This record gives sequence, structure tokens and C-alpha cells, in this order.
Amino acid sequence: MRETAILEIGQIPVADHWDKSLLEIAGEPVLQIFEKTGLNNVDGVFFGNMLSGAVNNQLHLGSYLGDWLGARHTEGIHVETACSSGASSFRQALMAVASGDIDTAIAVGAEKMTDAPAEEITAELASAADSEYERDMGVSFTAMNAMLMRRYMSEYGWRRENFANFSINAHANAVHNPCARFRSAITKETYLRAEMVNDPVSVMDAPPVVDGAAAVLIVPLDHVRGQLGVVRILGSGAATDNFALHSRKDPLWLSAVERSAKQAYRQAGLTPEDIDLFEAHDAFTIISALSLEACGFAERGKGPQLAEEGQISLIGRIPISTRGGLKARGHPVGATGLYQIVEAVQQLQGVCGKGQVPNAKIAMTQNIGGLGTNVITNIFSL
Amino acid sequence: MRETAILEIGQIPVADHWDKSLLEIAGEPVLQIFEKTGLNNVDGVFFGNMLSGAVNNQLHLGSYLGDWLGARHTEGIHVETACSSGASSFRQALMAVASGDIDTAIAVGAEKMTDAPAEEITAELASAADSEYERDMGVSFTAMNAMLMRRYMSEYGWRRENFANFSINAHANAVHNPCARFRSAITKETYLRAEMVNDPVSVMDAPPVVDGAAAVLIVPLDHVRGQLGVVRILGSGAATDNFALHSRKDPLWLSAVERSAKQAYRQAGLTPEDIDLFEAHDAFTIISALSLEACGFAERGKGPQLAEEGQISLIGRIPISTRGGLKARGHPVGATGLYQIVEAVQQLQGVCGKGQVPNAKIAMTQNIGGLGTNVITNIFSL
Repeated sequence: MRETAILEIGQIPVADHWDKSLLEIAGEPVLQIFEKTGLNNVDGVFFGNMLSGAVNNQLHLGSYLGDWLGARHTEGIHVETACSSGASSFRQALMAVASGDIDTAIAVGAEKMTDAPAEEITAELASAADSEYERDMGVSFTAMNAMLMRRYMSEYGWRRENFANFSINAHANAVHNPCARFRSAITKETYLRAEMVNDPVSVMDAPPVVDGAAAVLIVPLDHVRGQLGVVRILGSGAATDNFALHSRKDPLWLSAVERSAKQAYRQAGLTPEDIDLFEAHDAFTIISALSLEACGFAERGKGPQLAEEGQISLIGRIPISTRGGLKARGHPVGATGLYQIVEAVQQLQGVCGKGQVPNAKIAMTQNIGGLGTNVITNIFSL
Repeated sequence: MRETAILEIGQIPVADHWDKSLLEIAGEPVLQIFEKTGLNNVDGVFFGNMLSGAVNNQLHLGSYLGDWLGARHTEGIHVETACSSGASSFRQALMAVASGDIDTAIAVGAEKMTDAPAEEITAELASAADSEYERDMGVSFTAMNAMLMRRYMSEYGWRRENFANFSINAHANAVHNPCARFRSAITKETYLRAEMVNDPVSVMDAPPVVDGAAAVLIVPLDHVRGQLGVVRILGSGAATDNFALHSRKDPLWLSAVERSAKQAYRQAGLTPEDIDLFEAHDAFTIISALSLEACGFAERGKGPQLAEEGQISLIGRIPISTRGGLKARGHPVGATGLYQIVEAVQQLQGVCGKGQVPNAKIAMTQNIGGLGTNVITNIFSL
């Protein structure tokens, strides 16, 4: 594989962007990149999005955005892997550059979730799960996470309050991120008193429905070696698990998370001990716990302990959700994977101010589609 | 780029598969490949599909199919570029293998169009066009092709009957393809008397709404060099044009077709003169004419002349639609790009019987999303 790097990043605040179209929010981070690099075209635009067909009556997003950008003749691809669509578009762009076929690839993730009523969004999000055996039975994603969390608590003896610090940490970090949806700290009391969605999952265990877009520019490392701020892509892994939760022999072990992380570690020549920060897919607090375990940061059944001990904070052993995570920065589904990568780049560049992880040399991102079903892990360094 | 090859192919007949789910039709061609190769897993499944979110309430198709296949932990990607989703999934699989990251990639295209009423399909297909300026104005894809055909006829002095041979040739070839939807020859009279959809586009200028699925297995050429029947991927190109028809300075020149073909020629080190057969995207007869011109097989404004002179037949200068094309084999949108590649492989392997192009050494395929908007061209040889 040809070595690759991220030359530039772009993002807009995660918010309710009722006044802008999908094209406008998706285009803005790319125009930021064009302005910073002086480019006005690229070889490929890889667009991660999940819900536009249903919410915006629009498919064919790669060409659609390429035209809006004025990126004449660019290759245009729309990649959809549910909530991991962002990281999947990044990975497809990465492969195209790594193959040597193209030299400049934009990976952009964008999602407009507030253009449809919340109940419609809930139904559409369930199309990431098995339509015949899960969605059509009325099992929402939050409900599946609730079943998983309850089983985990029962199996390992944790109580709901032991998950509080995942949410508290995310909100504390979001305060320092101008692009985060919720820039307000919360207390343990806020967490404990939060309204239930599907017991034991409360609104403080789950991400908000929001709009957002983020993008990166991928180029061959050889073209930019030595340039200030360039971030190297050290490793990338992708794996899948059984699609429906009921098909898994061991639902409390996210085997695709493990597999994808191990691929990324191997390619980077690193181990979990080398990772300085981890942008985890904290869509639900239970997923944070299970991901920390399957990635090798915690023993099985011990994920919440890292949160309880403060090891996930900016100065802890393995900082997660360092810019607010899915919980507090927000989870505009198809954009999330790109926000995570943008945030990892910012941490490695040391530009996060009060939200900075001290001495961050190696960053890992992980984006998950479905309930641990489709997992993409990437490792970066300056 | 690491050199790549197609090791094996699979397909099901294009038909109305009311008795099968999307998973069943998508899985069958892959199981054919598994059976022929002895494989039971692959590194990646790249699934091209356009309409499943709307028609089947199911997204996240790469993981979904990977699980159904028992392809434990495989990477799973869903690629959507409207009617070129099949070739786009092929190209993403190709890049992943060419990069050296993975060694076995299934590219599969599948579409169930008969699970929804025809008027719903017409509306959903329009989400490949600009939702605000075309779809929402009630302009269907057939209507846009009608405008294009009328303008072309007016500009270059062709009459409707001059397009007849595109349709007659496709049907004549489909007779010899057991997987084709319409295995019946038609006459010029059939063409001339055909019911109009949007004048001058009749049902004999347009493809049927159908179900279908096809797949190929891509591997590094070095792993299979010398094996019987292995087909080399010599060149691949992808390009886009202005998204909305009204934005194009010159609507009668498909510039993304030209660009994508030129990329493929350059990569393969070939010219149009070297191509022995061309699986064109003959969704509409006007698109056949325009594609032949933009690919360099006919001068501008002269596309129909190739049809009139019989140059597109199996024994002509540039055979097209050799297994029936989109018109008579059928156009299950997300699957079409893979059917074209499967057919090119069959021609190169010389297994097409009465439908064989004599002495076929170099084959080209071209899949188009939107009205010439997103174009992927590939060139193959034994």
C-alpha cells in the first residue's frame, strides 16, 4: 500500500441547520479545505451519508456534491454503512489513494436529521438493523442498546450509576469544542435524574438527533512529507459481526470491534498501550464500555471501571470523547466518522486549547454502524 | 497499483423475483462463486444497490449480506451511485485489492424493483436526479431522456426510426442469454409501433423494471496468473458531469463518459480501435448513441449510423449489448454494472455460444448513474 496522509480538515458546528440544505452543510467543510489548500478540484469525492434517500429524497450524493463544489469531472461516490457511513467513506477514499489510482480524495460525511419528524428518524435509523427480524418487530436502536446494557449490568454486577462518567466526561470535553452540540457540563445528579428513553438507557446515555458535516483531504504521504500539521494514516481496519443482535453467540463481546482494532494495530505496528487518545463510538454509554474492552483498553466486564476511575478523561490513561463524543458533540449519523477523524487530527496538531490531551502522539478513531455490526478503526500520528 | 483480476463470476436470471428477498437474490451469485472456488469467506463484500432503503426498508447492505453468507468478520460496504451503483461497488472493491490492503473482494450488485408499485419506483429513480430542480418538478428519467433524444434528432437530423437497430440488436442478442429478461427478437415494425412513454421515447427505447443480481470475485493478478479463464482488469476510470441536465453547456456531449473512457484507455494503454466489444449503458437508445460518440467509436452526431450499418452487431466493428444489454437483458439498476462485467468475462472466456463475439480479446464495460452524470468504465482481457 502507498502510504497516505491527511493534509487538511473541515467541519461545521453540529446543530439544527434548518436554514441550510444537505448540499450546503456537506459543501461547507470541503470549501474550508479548498480555501486552506488553494485547491479547487480533487480526483474523488467520497460522501458518507445514511438517511438522505428517506429524509431528503436525494441519492447519488457523490456526483451531487461534486457538481455543487464545481469539482469538474471528479469521481463521485456515496457510501452507506448506517452510523459508520462517515468512516466507511473515509476508508474508501483511503483505499483509492493508497492504490495509487488517485492523488487527492475528499472524504466527507454529512447528515440532515432534523428535516424529518423524530419518530420518522427513529424508524429510518432502524433500517440499519434487520428489517424483518428487528425493525418490523418495533425494536428501535435505543431499545436494543437498553437490552444490551441490562444484560451487561446483570452479568457483571454494574449499576446504572457506574456508567455516569462516560456521559459526564463527554459533556465536560464538549465545553471546549466550538463545534459541539451541547457545550455544557453535567453532574452525576443530572445523569441520575435524566429522563428514561428505554430503561436503563436515559437521554444521558444516548446521543441527540442533529445535523452536521465534516471532511478531510487524503493525499499520498510522499507528496506532503515534512509539511507542518500533516497527519499520517498509520493503520486502518474494517470488520463486521452478525447483523442481528439475536444471532450472536456472545452479545456482550463486540467481536467486529476487536477484529477491526486488531487489524489497525497490526498495520500500524502498535498495541493498545501506544494509543494516547481514542475517539470511541460512544453512541450509548454501554457501547463505550464494550468498545474499551474489545479494543484491549479494559478487561472483559471492566469497561465502566475506566470511567469510574477517571481514566477516560483528558489526563487519564485512555482519553475518550475528547471533543465531546457522539453524546455531547452530537451524532449526525453519516457525519460522525469524519468528525472523529477531524478531532483526532486536531488533538495531534495540539490545537484543542483547554480540551487538549497533553502530549498526544498517537490517536485512534472508531466508528460503528448498527449495534457493533460494521466497525472501522483508524490510527493516526503526526 | 497492484494488478488485479476477476477469478470467478455469478449471476441469476433477470426476472420478477417476487418469491425471493433482496438477501436471497444478492446472495445467490456469491454462493455460486463460493461453490466454484471452494471459498467460504472473503476479505470484503462491496454491495451496489440503489433503492433498498426506499423499497425494502433496509440499508447497511454490506454487513447484512456478509452475515447471510456466513462471511464471518468480512468488511461490508454499501455503495450507491444511482444506476451505476453496480460498477461503483466493483470499482471500490477493485481499489481495495489494488491497494494491497485486502486479497479477496466480492463486488455484488442487486436490486429488487418489483417489490414496489411502478409509480413509486419511477419517483424513487428520480432521486438520482436533482431533487429540487428536476424530481420535484415532476421530471421523470424517461422524460429527461425524451428531451435529450428530441434535441439530438433536431440537431443532427435523425429520425426516430434511425434508433431502431439499438433495440433490435439488444433483443437479438438476448435470445442467446439464459439470464436475459426478454429472450425474444423484435422487428423494425415492433419498434415503430411500440407504445410511447414520453415521445419520442417508446417502451422499445427504454429498459424494463426488473429484479436481478450479479457478482464477481476480484483478487490480485499475481495470485492467479496462468489459471484458466482468469480475466485481467486492464483499466478503470470514473468521472462525473454536471448533476442537473439544465446545468450542462452542451447536453448532447456526455463529457463524463468521455473522461471516464479516456482514463480507462490510458490505464490500459489502449485506444477505441483495440476494443472488441463494448457493454454500453443502453438504458435508452439515445444514451447508446451518445455513449458511442463520447467513447470515440463514432463521430459526434453519428452514433445512430453505427446501428443503421449493423456495426453494433456481434460481427460488426463494435458489438454492444452483446448479451441483451439494459434493454433486453434488463436493468435492475444497482445490479446492471455487475451484469455488464459478468457478460464481458463470458465473452472473453468464449462461452456465449450463438451469442459469442468472434475472437473477443478486449472487452469494455460502461455503467452510468443519472443522465450521463456518474460514469465508470472498465477494460478487460484474458
